[in-house]
Amino acid sequence: MIRHTLRKQLVNAARTPVITRRYAHAPVALNWEDPLDSASLFTEEEVAIQETANSYCQERMLPRVLDAFRDEHYDRTILEEMGELGLLGATIKGYDCAGVSSVASGLITREVERVDSGYRSGMSVQSSLVMGGIDEFGTREQKDKFLPGMAKGKILGCFGLTEPNHGSDPGSMETTAKPHPSKEGYLSLSGSKTWITNSPIAEVMLVWAKLQSTGKIRGFLIERDQCPPGTLETPPLKNKNGLRASITGMIQLDECPVPEANMFPEVEGLRGPFSCLNSARYGIAWGVMGALEDCIARARTYALERRQFKNNPIAKYQLVQKKLSDAVTDASYGILAATQVGRLKDEGKLAPEMISMIKRQNCDRALINARTLQEIFGGNAVSDEYGIGRHVANLFVTQTYEGQSDIHSLILGRAITGIQAFV
Amino acid sequence: MIRHTLRKQLVNAARTPVITRRYAHAPVALNWEDPLDSASLFTEEEVAIQETANSYCQERMLPRVLDAFRDEHYDRTILEEMGELGLLGATIKGYDCAGVSSVASGLITREVERVDSGYRSGMSVQSSLVMGGIDEFGTREQKDKFLPGMAKGKILGCFGLTEPNHGSDPGSMETTAKPHPSKEGYLSLSGSKTWITNSPIAEVMLVWAKLQSTGKIRGFLIERDQCPPGTLETPPLKNKNGLRASITGMIQLDECPVPEANMFPEVEGLRGPFSCLNSARYGIAWGVMGALEDCIARARTYALERRQFKNNPIAKYQLVQKKLSDAVTDASYGILAATQVGRLKDEGKLAPEMISMIKRQNCDRALINARTLQEIFGGNAVSDEYGIGRHVANLFVTQTYEGQSDIHSLILGRAITGIQAFV
Amino acid sequence: MIRHTLRKQLVNAARTPVITRRYAHAPVALNWEDPLDSASLFTEEEVAIQETANSYCQERMLPRVLDAFRDEHYDRTILEEMGELGLLGATIKGYDCAGVSSVASGLITREVERVDSGYRSGMSVQSSLVMGGIDEFGTREQKDKFLPGMAKGKILGCFGLTEPNHGSDPGSMETTAKPHPSKEGYLSLSGSKTWITNSPIAEVMLVWAKLQSTGKIRGFLIERDQCPPGTLETPPLKNKNGLRASITGMIQLDECPVPEANMFPEVEGLRGPFSCLNSARYGIAWGVMGALEDCIARARTYALERRQFKNNPIAKYQLVQKKLSDAVTDASYGILAATQVGRLKDEGKLAPEMISMIKRQNCDRALINARTLQEIFGGNAVSDEYGIGRHVANLFVTQTYEGQSDIHSLILGRAITGIQAFV
Amino acid sequence: MIRHTLRKQLVNAARTPVITRRYAHAPVALNWEDPLDSASLFTEEEVAIQETANSYCQERMLPRVLDAFRDEHYDRTILEEMGELGLLGATIKGYDCAGVSSVASGLITREVERVDSGYRSGMSVQSSLVMGGIDEFGTREQKDKFLPGMAKGKILGCFGLTEPNHGSDPGSMETTAKPHPSKEGYLSLSGSKTWITNSPIAEVMLVWAKLQSTGKIRGFLIERDQCPPGTLETPPLKNKNGLRASITGMIQLDECPVPEANMFPEVEGLRGPFSCLNSARYGIAWGVMGALEDCIARARTYALERRQFKNNPIAKYQLVQKKLSDAVTDASYGILAATQVGRLKDEGKLAPEMISMIKRQNCDRALINARTLQEIFGGNAVSDEYGIGRHVANLFVTQTYEGQSDIHSLILGRAITGIQAFV
Repeated sequence: MIRHTLRKQLVNAARTPVITRRYAHAPVALNWEDPLDSASLFTEEEVAIQETANSYCQERMLPRVLDAFRDEHYDRTILEEMGELGLLGATIKGYDCAGVSSVASGLITREVERVDSGYRSGMSVQSSLVMGGIDEFGTREQKDKFLPGMAKGKILGCFGLTEPNHGSDPGSMETTAKPHPSKEGYLSLSGSKTWITNSPIAEVMLVWAKLQSTGKIRGFLIERDQCPPGTLETPPLKNKNGLRASITGMIQLDECPVPEANMFPEVEGLRGPFSCLNSARYGIAWGVMGALEDCIARARTYALERRQFKNNPIAKYQLVQKKLSDAVTDASYGILAATQVGRLKDEGKLAPEMISMIKRQNCDRALINARTLQEIFGGNAVSDEYGIGRHVANLFVTQTYEGQSDIHSLILGRAITGIQAFV
Repeated sequence: MIRHTLRKQLVNAARTPVITRRYAHAPVALNWEDPLDSASLFTEEEVAIQETANSYCQERMLPRVLDAFRDEHYDRTILEEMGELGLLGATIKGYDCAGVSSVASGLITREVERVDSGYRSGMSVQSSLVMGGIDEFGTREQKDKFLPGMAKGKILGCFGLTEPNHGSDPGSMETTAKPHPSKEGYLSLSGSKTWITNSPIAEVMLVWAKLQSTGKIRGFLIERDQCPPGTLETPPLKNKNGLRASITGMIQLDECPVPEANMFPEVEGLRGPFSCLNSARYGIAWGVMGALEDCIARARTYALERRQFKNNPIAKYQLVQKKLSDAVTDASYGILAATQVGRLKDEGKLAPEMISMIKRQNCDRALINARTLQEIFGGNAVSDEYGIGRHVANLFVTQTYEGQSDIHSLILGRAITGIQAFV
Repeated sequence: MIRHTLRKQLVNAARTPVITRRYAHAPVALNWEDPLDSASLFTEEEVAIQETANSYCQERMLPRVLDAFRDEHYDRTILEEMGELGLLGATIKGYDCAGVSSVASGLITREVERVDSGYRSGMSVQSSLVMGGIDEFGTREQKDKFLPGMAKGKILGCFGLTEPNHGSDPGSMETTAKPHPSKEGYLSLSGSKTWITNSPIAEVMLVWAKLQSTGKIRGFLIERDQCPPGTLETPPLKNKNGLRASITGMIQLDECPVPEANMFPEVEGLRGPFSCLNSARYGIAWGVMGALEDCIARARTYALERRQFKNNPIAKYQLVQKKLSDAVTDASYGILAATQVGRLKDEGKLAPEMISMIKRQNCDRALINARTLQEIFGGNAVSDEYGIGRHVANLFVTQTYEGQSDIHSLILGRAITGIQAFV
Repeated sequence: MIRHTLRKQLVNAARTPVITRRYAHAPVALNWEDPLDSASLFTEEEVAIQETANSYCQERMLPRVLDAFRDEHYDRTILEEMGELGLLGATIKGYDCAGVSSVASGLITREVERVDSGYRSGMSVQSSLVMGGIDEFGTREQKDKFLPGMAKGKILGCFGLTEPNHGSDPGSMETTAKPHPSKEGYLSLSGSKTWITNSPIAEVMLVWAKLQSTGKIRGFLIERDQCPPGTLETPPLKNKNGLRASITGMIQLDECPVPEANMFPEVEGLRGPFSCLNSARYGIAWGVMGALEDCIARARTYALERRQFKNNPIAKYQLVQKKLSDAVTDASYGILAATQVGRLKDEGKLAPEMISMIKRQNCDRALINARTLQEIFGGNAVSDEYGIGRHVANLFVTQTYEGQSDIHSLILGRAITGIQAFV
């Protein structure tokens, strides 16, 4: 049915193909919003999906974001709305998911993050980390049980990997799963996870823990409503510097009973969480380009409207134009790279380090350019109403989470040289 | 008496010269907090003043800043406390001011901004922009009336130059002063000023306006309690991205009557406000180094305590050490430059572009390094409790106010080439 | 026949498809030489052409380049050899040219510049600036007369646009063409062109001059062997900092008689030379990526072989790996962007500013990364035998010629904002 | 007598104090050549010494440098001329040396490198590495024998530490000294040193080798004319990318007999060579600022003379002015830092890492700014006659020798964190 909804929109989109039409005529003039005509690389379906996402994000999400960021408030109905549109877990085939291409899912991500990285984070967790993980590693029963509800945004998920003392090095995690002392067929999980997006509001938690019997990391689906009191706490972490429109918290497990049936059947070690993270990182590489594109549009508008010295719009000044040119260039390049990796992903030609490359580069360039564009606003940049300060604050977080920039440079360096340099 | 207080502390300081002692023994080992031994350039009195300021700031200010920034709240008793210590308008001779050197005032600024740029902004406005302006351009009566109370922090001031449509180009201001239609000996001021630190709580406002009869810019001291209802409004500007521990607002004047005796007697044109701004910018060049030094100390502590990969403190990793080395270097260089300009200032050898140079460079380098140091905190940087995110947010504002970085580069460029490139 | 040669090689290549095979197996492991698998975007024919060019360049060109650069010597037989392989004017259809895609021509350029930017410059002038200009703007007779010989490398061309006092602003050129005072059907050209690659050895010069009768810029094909003594001089410019393996000179015209039949028939103004330059710039965007890739390969090899501190290869150090990761990323992104623009070019969807974008970005990133990679060689970098210093010297020139980086940022800025900021 | 010469010049300088006078009048206008008035920190004697050096360098050295760099030729009479002026080993007290302050010696270095880093290298080796080493570690006899002749430039020295396989890590050196098998009172040295400035022309070589009996590194003064044929070779290393106006070579020792009396008496381990290197690095920190200042002057002149677009000097364009402002700022800061370290050196308050800081920072900033300034020359930068390309090539070498930039960042990082990160 979800698939239906998206299909129907595609049909409608075909009748009024806003984005398609925009790029249809011969681009003798540069389109500053897509200077290297990346749209020429997308299928009609992908363009239509982007348009659907764009309309929703601009019309429904954007009006809420300023207050959400100020008040550090996350509106979970957003995920339900996205579910209705078929935007969640969109690359999954079956289970009421849309089954679109990786590029299409990237375009959705780009549109959501064009509004706010926090909203995109909330979606990434649901779609890539949890739904993607269940789809890739879950049993048929786990998929049937969780995926359709998650696709609709009725069941919210979160992903518990990072621990307070183990960020870049999750292999040292301390959370353990051992046979439950009293409940047959149950494991008992204890440990603490932190910086978990959506944890305070999630119904299902994909938690990674070391199975005591083997010492190997395994994945567990913990259902909040099945946890006895005192065995699961998910306190929110407030007063964040960025991503304030998403909700973040801890997962504290104290001998929490989890049915054996809720453990992923086969995947062991870091392969499981890294595979999920790689999907999410692929989405981040797309998303941050959307945030950067919004910064460009905002800075361009400001530069054309703001007048200083002899009533010139400041867009006339060389130092302003250079900032815009640099940013537009990096956005164009980043979109091409993300598109290419998406195609390779769907063709089974993906090397994980490709994602390290585009996650790092796109986050770094989005951040650097957003900061530079913010300078165009001069003293007015201090007001949150121009929106760019919010993007800057968010983009810094995207650079540090799911693999800090330097860590990805060393992952890439290892692939280039054959030598690891982490320690 | 204020002078007394400071003197008394100097005597005490001389008995227990904490900072002096720190640098007394032969520095065979590098002191990472002052790697180029800038302390060797300060007099004993200056060192003692820095110590006084440091103790106050760390013991009294620091505990308040996290909440102040979160809640966007400014505690005006801070200025009273600083007044009691003799830290306000400290370079002014007479009028109960301490009459210390420019370097000493810079050291005070550095200590205040080591805690928070917002607190330093509140002080800069009081000390440099308003008290400095009155001392330099005011009549004897104006000085007698305002300076002693301002020195004690009993009378708060603000500085109204920037207008909504005229930031980098104040010469185009629209606020005017014309003969008051009904009150003899009064002028009538109308216009709007924005991004005015302290305006919502100030008792006296130094406002720059064009005198209708000459078309020339003049300075006016507006006393809030003398303004009839409806002629003066100072609404706060909330939801700032940075400097949230300072209070900012507008000054809206609607035929506000101001006694002719409250006009600065001689200074005309932009020379007046630019002179005040230059003093404030000199303080910023010192202050941001304090903020950067705090970022260094916080990042260093974090890097020594945080362990990743084989239980190594992350301070062991090359990519972390390089960030620290870069930051420490820029802080050391910036302090030397600010010291040199302070000495030249007191010797009457100051060229205004020297201040453009150190304001720009120190703000730029403080910001860039603070951002890079923030990366050391990885995902934890998103928590405001590490303090560095607050500095980063503040330092961006210091780069854009009182002359955005690019504007200062063009001021400097004009001095180098003899050609202006603003338009 | 040339076409034949290339075709034949394609057939051979199909039998032993070296590059194709390299990318054929599923790239689970990252290929550091093509990390985003750009090869997947090329046709089999394009891959075969690259292979042909690669073999020639590595086997025939590379052994000559060190001495050529040291002695500032250009070996014109190189162009003849390239002509034999069908690599000159390769995108032109007919006239014994190969008629390949723009991407294929870009791949040739990349292989040539992987050896040396100077060799690529010599080829660019022949292929893009002169042959491309004749093909686009020449009469049928002009094409018949020049193109086949140029395709074989038997006739060498050069392109005279830049004048001593007019670099970034060619519209102000001073070279003029007026009716010849004595020779019927001839124009008389006078003026001076500088920094003209190949001028001292060229048989035909495409010179742009203002037609006196209209004041409009027109293109002229000047044949050296038809010029009376004293009317044409092409003195070489020696002692260059870079591109020392290419030959550069001036074109000095003193009432040089040129047949009217040698004037391009229709194109007027800067449209003509800019169109030629745009083709050449497209090639530069490809070429510099080849130079950067060679720097990466050289630095990687050095880092794996050089051992310092406990006998570790320096490739193990984080600061070294980061330099490699940055460079590899920029090379990967640049290749994708150049490929995309090539496709758009062939589909008639090219906006000229796309070329400004990729010329600027690829040159800038090639230069920056080459310089950083050079640091890996430590003190040994001073020896020219490591080759990387040569690339660094060359790449600086590519950044400044055919549109200095800043000029292209303003061209792009104009397209983004609709406002020109050149003056 | 040398001392006499310098003194005499000081007296003359006092009569016509060119530099002093330049800075004497109140600098209301910014002096772009010394924007932070560093001259105010120098004594009259220091200013006079700088003036002497400046006159010599500009009048005598500058005319030779273009050909020297082109032909990779070093004119050893330069050292003799400098010796006549008292500029060699200038900080040494006694032995016919001038005995001036560290700042004065830095000012000499700055003037020499304002012409060329290669000339400065030749001088640094003589003054800091060899004469400084003998003065600090030599016996009275060694000093008497070598220093006066070296001060006059009659005896040239070189410094042999770096080996082909041991650059950043000299502690692993392989050169050894063992008892000579046949000559009583002699040691036999064998091993190979590379990248040794002045080695092909030096009369005396300060070579560091491991004493076989202790395994500790010791210093030896090898006199060329005392070495039997076949025991010492000093082949030149040609075809350098930079520092082409200095001469560089190897030192190859094959059982070379060296009298025990030529060994430094006490210093063992890396303390000896590191102390010499630190002196040289201090000089480099000054020197590169001179090179940068020359780049600024050349770029400024070019920007004022070169006209593009509506006949504006390109100095009018914002993107050009920003490059100049950045460079001028870094030069000003760097001079202040070098001055401060010089003062601390003479006061016995030097920490070695201070020199790592200023060597690294000043080299890095000189290089970065020189490269950026070079862009101002556009396509003309390719000509070596503008001189800036030569500085760029030289400055890259200064960044990599005597401690590559990254190595110094780790030395500094170790001092900041207490943890070494070399391996």
